[in-house]
This record gives sequence, structure tokens and C-alpha cells, in this order.
Amino acid sequence: MVPATSLEEGTVRDAYHEELDSLSDRLVEMTRLVRSAMARAVTALLDADLRLSEEVISGDEHINKIDAELEETVFDLMARQQPVAGDLRMVITALRMSGDLERMGDLAVHIAKTARRRHPETAVPPELQSTVLQMGQIAERMVAKAGSVIASKDVELGLELDADDDAMDRLHRTLFDILLSPKWKHGVEPAVDITLAGRYFERFADHAVVVAENVVYLVTGQRPADIVDDLT
Amino acid sequence: MVPATSLEEGTVRDAYHEELDSLSDRLVEMTRLVRSAMARAVTALLDADLRLSEEVISGDEHINKIDAELEETVFDLMARQQPVAGDLRMVITALRMSGDLERMGDLAVHIAKTARRRHPETAVPPELQSTVLQMGQIAERMVAKAGSVIASKDVELGLELDADDDAMDRLHRTLFDILLSPKWKHGVEPAVDITLAGRYFERFADHAVVVAENVVYLVTGQRPADIVDDLT
Repeated sequence: MVPATSLEEGTVRDAYHEELDSLSDRLVEMTRLVRSAMARAVTALLDADLRLSEEVISGDEHINKIDAELEETVFDLMARQQPVAGDLRMVITALRMSGDLERMGDLAVHIAKTARRRHPETAVPPELQSTVLQMGQIAERMVAKAGSVIASKDVELGLELDADDDAMDRLHRTLFDILLSPKWKHGVEPAVDITLAGRYFERFADHAVVVAENVVYLVTGQRPADIVDDLT
Repeated sequence: MVPATSLEEGTVRDAYHEELDSLSDRLVEMTRLVRSAMARAVTALLDADLRLSEEVISGDEHINKIDAELEETVFDLMARQQPVAGDLRMVITALRMSGDLERMGDLAVHIAKTARRRHPETAVPPELQSTVLQMGQIAERMVAKAGSVIASKDVELGLELDADDDAMDRLHRTLFDILLSPKWKHGVEPAVDITLAGRYFERFADHAVVVAENVVYLVTGQRPADIVDDLT
């Protein structure tokens, strides 16, 4: 949608605003691809599904391509239009969010590669399956929310990501509790896999929080932590 | 140093170029602080030195502060001077390099926290001490080189970082070989610590490569991989 104010300013200005909007559309598209990659990677990890892991690994190229194109668009747009103030902050923030989403795609690939490395065995022992499943579900939910936040500029939804991140941290601690309990009988190799997978989920969640934070900051001029302070 | 060409263009233009140079100075200062943080973190890890780990953890605030100030300077500079073409790419790249260096500081903190968590024991069993020491030395060397590359714009030095990163990857594989060997007798807990520490070193090296790549790209307009292709 072209904002109403730009209608008075002729076609050059309209094309400019359309380009700004297209940045946001492409970021939303990236969240969709990253969400799908994470969903498949987690299923591949839990089910030792080689085909799904290969899909995630080869699909990452598409995400990287959108990131590279978005970067070119931003540099091109800045060179031609020299955006200032709010628009400038917006395009640079889009560049950063694209980088965060690209990295989230890489983390889904790391999880898929863990599944592939252990195939035909599963990398996740039975007593960890539900914890890993929940971490995957939260990861998927967080990137879906980040996409909605980019599309809707919904600050309240953006603030929800912090609570999701806390839930992810709790599951991450549960993972270590199980790994380090005297009952653990799977030895070092699955412990190494799970330690790395846990780290990938945690970083994925961190990046999702940063993406949402950036939108909240663009809309309100405040970092989420400050808004929560103001509300309480 | 103010470039000779800008002398003809009066004081406003000089102040502008001084500001551009100051970005580079601050990035070099960040590499120095990050190098020092990594050196202390590795010593803390190998020697189980609580004081050194606390120094790294509390010192990270200083690195974060420079990153935040650099970001403000960049936004301010873009709003006032509207740099185009090469200058524009330069300031945005400075913003990214600052982000990479800030993250490298975080990774040194993670290593320091691993040391602190296991104190007064050491997190690194004897058979892994030399591998971890070498990973730390490469990490330290890589960030020092990245600093020199930023200061000197030395493309050849920038290209060296790839070989350092390969050396880091080899050590990382050695780490896993030792962890997963039948001779490993330290159980799961040190394996988890070492797995995470290995991941922190690897990511630290990746960020150092990206910093150097960015300088190479600014100077030559080519990504390092393409230059190496041209040379061979």
C-alpha cells in the first residue's frame, strides 16, 4: 500500500514508497522461509529424516539470495533517494533484520546437518524428544511472530517475543539438567549433538527477539525493555 | 590523516573526512579491546583464574559502549552529510564491522563465563589444554590482524584470515576427535563445556573473517574468494 501522503508528490515519490514497502514484504517472505526451514529441521532431527534435512540444507540458498538482493536494493535506494531521518533508519534497520533472518536460516541448516550426520540414527534420545520438540515449536512461533510484527507493526505482539525467549531459556536449562543428570546413559556423542542443537535454538530465538525489537524501535522510538519499564 | 583532496574543499568537508577516519580509529580500538578480552578469557579458562574471567565479563560494557556510540555517529553522519557511493558503503560497513566486533566481545565473555562456572576446577582436561591454547592463540591473532587490516587497508593481510580460519576449523575437529575418542574419561560435563567453548572460538573466527572481508571489499570492490580465484 502506498501511504496517502505520497499521492500528492507524483510518481517518483510513489515508486520510492513502493520500494520501501517492498523491503518489508521481502523480510516477511524471509520469515516465512526461515519458519518453514526450522519446522523441517526439527522434524528431521526428531525423526532422523534424511530427505527433510537435505531440503533444509539446499533451501538455504534461496534465503541467502533474498538477503543479498535486499542488500543491493537498500544500497541502490540510498544512493538514488538519499532517505533521511525515519526513512533512513528504516532502510538500515531492514538491512540488519535481513542479516538476522539470513543467520536464522543458517541455524536451521546447522540443526538439519546434525540430523544428517547421525542418520539413520536419531540425534535425540527419547528422554529429550519432548524438550527438543518444544524448543522447535517456540523457535517456529517466534519467527512467525517476527513476521507478523514486520507486516503489522504490532508493538504488543513484538513485546511478546521476550516471554517466548524466556521460555526458550527455561527449556535450554532443562536440556542441560537432563544431559548432566546421573541418569544420562547415552554417553558423550549425543551430549555433544544436543549441546550444539540447544545452542542453535537459543541463538535462533535471540535473533528473532532482535528482529522484533527493531520493529518496536522503529514504531515507538523506544527499546522494548524501556517500554516494559514504562508499563510497570 | 585528512586526504589531500579534501584540503581544497574547506573546513566542513575536512570535519566530514575526520569523522570518517574516526570511525576507523574506533573500530581499531574495538579490535584491541576484543583481542585483550579473548587473551584473558583463554588464560582464565586454562588456568581457572576467577579474577581474569570477571575482568572479561565486566570489561565487555566498554566494548558495547563504543559500538553504541559508533552507531549513533553513523546515523548522525548520514543524516547531516548524506554520503553517497563509496563513502555511503564505507559508513554502513563500519556499522556492520562494529556489530561483528561487539559480538566477538560477547563470545570472549561466554568463554570467560565457562571458566567462572567451573572455578575452582578447570573446564579444560589436560589432553585438551594444548588444542584450546592454540584455538585461543589463533583467535587472538585473527582479531589483531583484523585491526591491522582496518588501520592499513592491507588487502594481502586481509586475505590471510581465511587460512587462519581453516587452521581454527582443523583444531575444532581435533577437539571433537579427542572428546569422542574411546579414551575420553571425563564424562559428559566437561564435554558439554568444551563443545560450547569450541563453538565460541569458531564463531569468533568467523566474525574476524567477515570484518577483514568487509575491508577487502571496500578497497577492491571484490569479495576475497573472487580475488583468490583471480590469483590462481
